[in-house]
Amino acid sequence: MRKKNVVLALILLLVGGVSLFAQDAIEELGFSLDVVWLFIGSILVFIMQAGFALVETGLTRAKNATNITMKNVMDFCFGAIVYWALGWGFMYGKDALGGFIGTSQFFHGPMELTIETGNFYKSWFFQVVFAATAATIVSGAMAERTQFKSYLIYTCFISAFIYPISGHWIWGGGWLAGLGFHDFAGSTVVHSVGGWAALMGAAVLGPRMGKYVKGPDGHITVKAVPGHNIPYAALGVLLLFFGWFGFNGASTGIATVGDGGIWSGLAIARVAVTTCLAASGGAVSALIFSWIWFKKPDASMTLNGLLAGLVGITAPCAVVSPGASIAIGLIAGVLVVLSVEFIDKVLKVDDPVGASSVHLTCGIFGTLAVGIWGNVEGVAVGVLHGGGFVQLGVQVIGILSVGAWAALVSLALFFVIKVIFGLRVSPKEESVGLDLAEHKSEAYAGFQIFSNM
Amino acid sequence: MRKKNVVLALILLLVGGVSLFAQDAIEELGFSLDVVWLFIGSILVFIMQAGFALVETGLTRAKNATNITMKNVMDFCFGAIVYWALGWGFMYGKDALGGFIGTSQFFHGPMELTIETGNFYKSWFFQVVFAATAATIVSGAMAERTQFKSYLIYTCFISAFIYPISGHWIWGGGWLAGLGFHDFAGSTVVHSVGGWAALMGAAVLGPRMGKYVKGPDGHITVKAVPGHNIPYAALGVLLLFFGWFGFNGASTGIATVGDGGIWSGLAIARVAVTTCLAASGGAVSALIFSWIWFKKPDASMTLNGLLAGLVGITAPCAVVSPGASIAIGLIAGVLVVLSVEFIDKVLKVDDPVGASSVHLTCGIFGTLAVGIWGNVEGVAVGVLHGGGFVQLGVQVIGILSVGAWAALVSLALFFVIKVIFGLRVSPKEESVGLDLAEHKSEAYAGFQIFSNM
Amino acid sequence: MRKKNVVLALILLLVGGVSLFAQDAIEELGFSLDVVWLFIGSILVFIMQAGFALVETGLTRAKNATNITMKNVMDFCFGAIVYWALGWGFMYGKDALGGFIGTSQFFHGPMELTIETGNFYKSWFFQVVFAATAATIVSGAMAERTQFKSYLIYTCFISAFIYPISGHWIWGGGWLAGLGFHDFAGSTVVHSVGGWAALMGAAVLGPRMGKYVKGPDGHITVKAVPGHNIPYAALGVLLLFFGWFGFNGASTGIATVGDGGIWSGLAIARVAVTTCLAASGGAVSALIFSWIWFKKPDASMTLNGLLAGLVGITAPCAVVSPGASIAIGLIAGVLVVLSVEFIDKVLKVDDPVGASSVHLTCGIFGTLAVGIWGNVEGVAVGVLHGGGFVQLGVQVIGILSVGAWAALVSLALFFVIKVIFGLRVSPKEESVGLDLAEHKSEAYAGFQIFSNM
Repeated sequence: MRKKNVVLALILLLVGGVSLFAQDAIEELGFSLDVVWLFIGSILVFIMQAGFALVETGLTRAKNATNITMKNVMDFCFGAIVYWALGWGFMYGKDALGGFIGTSQFFHGPMELTIETGNFYKSWFFQVVFAATAATIVSGAMAERTQFKSYLIYTCFISAFIYPISGHWIWGGGWLAGLGFHDFAGSTVVHSVGGWAALMGAAVLGPRMGKYVKGPDGHITVKAVPGHNIPYAALGVLLLFFGWFGFNGASTGIATVGDGGIWSGLAIARVAVTTCLAASGGAVSALIFSWIWFKKPDASMTLNGLLAGLVGITAPCAVVSPGASIAIGLIAGVLVVLSVEFIDKVLKVDDPVGASSVHLTCGIFGTLAVGIWGNVEGVAVGVLHGGGFVQLGVQVIGILSVGAWAALVSLALFFVIKVIFGLRVSPKEESVGLDLAEHKSEAYAGFQIFSNM
Repeated sequence: MRKKNVVLALILLLVGGVSLFAQDAIEELGFSLDVVWLFIGSILVFIMQAGFALVETGLTRAKNATNITMKNVMDFCFGAIVYWALGWGFMYGKDALGGFIGTSQFFHGPMELTIETGNFYKSWFFQVVFAATAATIVSGAMAERTQFKSYLIYTCFISAFIYPISGHWIWGGGWLAGLGFHDFAGSTVVHSVGGWAALMGAAVLGPRMGKYVKGPDGHITVKAVPGHNIPYAALGVLLLFFGWFGFNGASTGIATVGDGGIWSGLAIARVAVTTCLAASGGAVSALIFSWIWFKKPDASMTLNGLLAGLVGITAPCAVVSPGASIAIGLIAGVLVVLSVEFIDKVLKVDDPVGASSVHLTCGIFGTLAVGIWGNVEGVAVGVLHGGGFVQLGVQVIGILSVGAWAALVSLALFFVIKVIFGLRVSPKEESVGLDLAEHKSEAYAGFQIFSNM
Repeated sequence: MRKKNVVLALILLLVGGVSLFAQDAIEELGFSLDVVWLFIGSILVFIMQAGFALVETGLTRAKNATNITMKNVMDFCFGAIVYWALGWGFMYGKDALGGFIGTSQFFHGPMELTIETGNFYKSWFFQVVFAATAATIVSGAMAERTQFKSYLIYTCFISAFIYPISGHWIWGGGWLAGLGFHDFAGSTVVHSVGGWAALMGAAVLGPRMGKYVKGPDGHITVKAVPGHNIPYAALGVLLLFFGWFGFNGASTGIATVGDGGIWSGLAIARVAVTTCLAASGGAVSALIFSWIWFKKPDASMTLNGLLAGLVGITAPCAVVSPGASIAIGLIAGVLVVLSVEFIDKVLKVDDPVGASSVHLTCGIFGTLAVGIWGNVEGVAVGVLHGGGFVQLGVQVIGILSVGAWAALVSLALFFVIKVIFGLRVSPKEESVGLDLAEHKSEAYAGFQIFSNM
């Protein structure tokens, strides 16, 4: 009988060993796959910086092309360093003040190579590129007249402070997360925050010279300032579209199946599909709407329509069907055209590339869309799927509170910068162009250009 | 004895549990990895849209730059929506008419998150970008003279109908698949279909004004119309090359090993290598051939040579050796130069960017290459590896049948559009340029440009 | 009793079967994940070709834009073919001459699809894009005056011979690897080799016409030659940044955990973070330093500063902390500005894009940084972490020996090419621009350009 017991024990040991070996190996593989997945997502969001740079460069004038590209490059570079030093800690550090702010992991950088530190670094990499997205939205709205130095100061603040704190409320386990606010990839967390700062910045700065011309009769004529390179803008939009698949797709957080649901690999492909279709819907409706309204298939409106669809689907991408995503895109594409006209003609705030319309207006709409088309039990069920107005109400709370935070703090920030450092270049510098005035060089040496209005 | 039986039962349960746990976990990991893999492939093929836009913009004139980029952006956006509504169903729906057409899964969009729906969405995402590739090939051949509206109508038809049906024959389990026709990543399915439509479109449209000038002696002079931005074209080609690694690589379908063979992760890296070498071979031979023939290392011919190598290796990339892939590339690079000259000078069909030579001529060649250099037992063994002419014969059947379908239906479509809506802009609009004529804006505001011939 | 033994045997068989099944399946999954990972890394490094092309095009004159883009495209295409034929074998073939050179696997191309051949192909794909990076660095330094034909001859030699041999010493298991030299992703292996060839090439060629003008008093005035498209340069830098995540990240070799440590998936995310922060630091310090020194936030210096940070972190990216990576970046950004000024004003070697400063100076610095900030026990412990000067000493040996090899052989090569084929275009061709002189076409047909100095 002892012999048999030994055999049984050996078998049990063997089974246990196989089990442990398999469990460990599978867990490790899952870790590795998730690292690869977030790496892919991160670099895709990173390349959106090039997309923003091209869109903003293309839709503004040649005399400011170096300046706008430099702003786009440098907001990432300054942003990454301050997000490492401070931003991450405010966003994902130990919660304090009842869900308001994180308070640890500043200047964080462990040297051990374990699954735990690997997970920290993979999340940090994914988050830093999101922070940079929020920051870079603003450069377009403030293009062609903002001092380079002042822009750099602003960008450090949004990446270190403004974005991480409202981000903490939603993605850092803060108070809005507790209410059930749903913003899968950041229509509010990223785009509205950037959009509010963009609108405030453009308002504080005032319009570009010659943009709103008062006639002798007191009537104000609104002039269009055509961009200098539509292919840049189109390439930029395609790069943004490309990167957005990572922005939304990798917001599942993992590629493995884990506990299933929208924060798992099961959701990745559908998120890609809703993202694809909403962007397409946005471009299609902006094209048709501008064609009807302005009697021409307007290029910059259509490109902004595509981005509008992307911003609109960012919050709801994981909780809506492909059909709903097309509806969301179609509506966003119309909204962005209306918003551009409203901000330009009615508010008379000069946003050269339409950044506030794309990111703020459609960021709000996308956040609401969760409460309308949401269709995932236990996450977000919207008005159209029998959820009543509960989710929609929470979404409104999130929009208002984050909006108040982002708008007021960025408004205050721009005022402080304006008073201490100055925000705007001189009229002479603006007329010459920021490339020569600030960087002492032309973007297109050798080319014959007439880029003044 | 009962106690011992209980122990045995427990052990069996444990073993079974471990086994099931391991099997389930491994299956889930495999699913996740395959999702990530097709996601990578899909976004790589997606960014080829930017590549096409840049190549076509760079090789045409500045006065049409907005128009051509808009066509490239919008064919994707319209195409995605109609492919979701109709195209997918025709291509991958339940087979009908004996392998001719699919008939289910129109407007498909399940909300459950399971491995099954995940697999549907991942395949859809991969397929929609392929459909968009076929569609966008045409814009280049029809550049600088096609009405924007009419182009959009065409593009809906090819994505919803023309491409999916011949696609069904080969990749949807249709009749050509049954014959043993092998087209790994779509030399015929994608490129030839787009290439035929491109050639038909250019022929129906007629040449650009001033392209073929009849002298008083009746002799026709063929004028070259230089493109306005060679760096755009080069960047576009590099983006296409980049994306093609996903186009060919992810056509394995899975990254896991599965049953092994060319439709498995075992083949991925070799497909990447053959793709890399064929493209290189194409560029090298087109460079040298154009250098000898035209006494200059011609930039646009060389760039088209690189694309020719890519189109040529698309069908055979998984069944040939690296050495064979170089041979295929070298031949494709020469073929594309000959084809450009033939179509331009002999057929006198005006294809501004050489799209039909790259995608049709080399698409046919690549499909034949399977029957010549193919060297994978059980899939495709070509003439050079002892397979005789069997595979080559089947490849010819596929080329002819898909060619007849694509050429005739697109020809009919363009004629119908021409009669109902008009296909071509007026001579005055063409002379002014489509940017001002159709979109009421310049692509390069502020730049001094003389872009009329 | 026999019955019980059968049961026991069955159980053992079952356990063994499960174990084998699980082990095999897990091993296969690991293989697949590693293939996907190196594929991602490879295509990211590939797209750096577009980055180099744009940076070099943007920072030189419009009249040479076709030529420089063609050089960038063709050095990849020729390089890939010769690396397949010869380079791989010299680098990774069977070692000979005591760690000096590899001697097998020339023209390698197995047709079996196994894990072994999959591993070969995945490594080859990753290595060919690294070889192409080393080669393409040179085109910028030799821009605007090198014969196209001669450049192509050079590029075949560096990809087939120069790069693979010093690469063998370090990454092919050669003598420097044996000494403990650490160069994770190639500050020396790739960048310094390219940088030395760049410096030698520029020196042998001599400066561009009008670059150094001798006055009647014998004083030499150094003229700046502004680049023609700063947005190209910025987009190029962002593409290089994007690709560098694969360059450094995938130099882990695998994504799985394997034996852990820096050559495993555990290190991927931290490598991405150090890469991100060093690049940011480089841009920030070059911006500030040039702002102080030249009284302007210089665009091309800042962009080169970003690249300097990337080159500097390439060797140490896996063995330093995020904080150290910022320090490395900040120093590299200052170094590159000093180096550009030194090479231009003191050495009077005309390197139009600053390639030798970015890749050679910062490549050397990055290699030294391993011996200073290195902090991984058993791999590299630097001066600042109690390792004394041991690692630093080995790094110096590597820098000197690879430098001697690359500098002398490329110097000899350029002299031989100069004598046999000629290296430089005629003054007339240089004045007209290489686009018209060599390729008989303009890069920007239709645009009004004054691009002569």
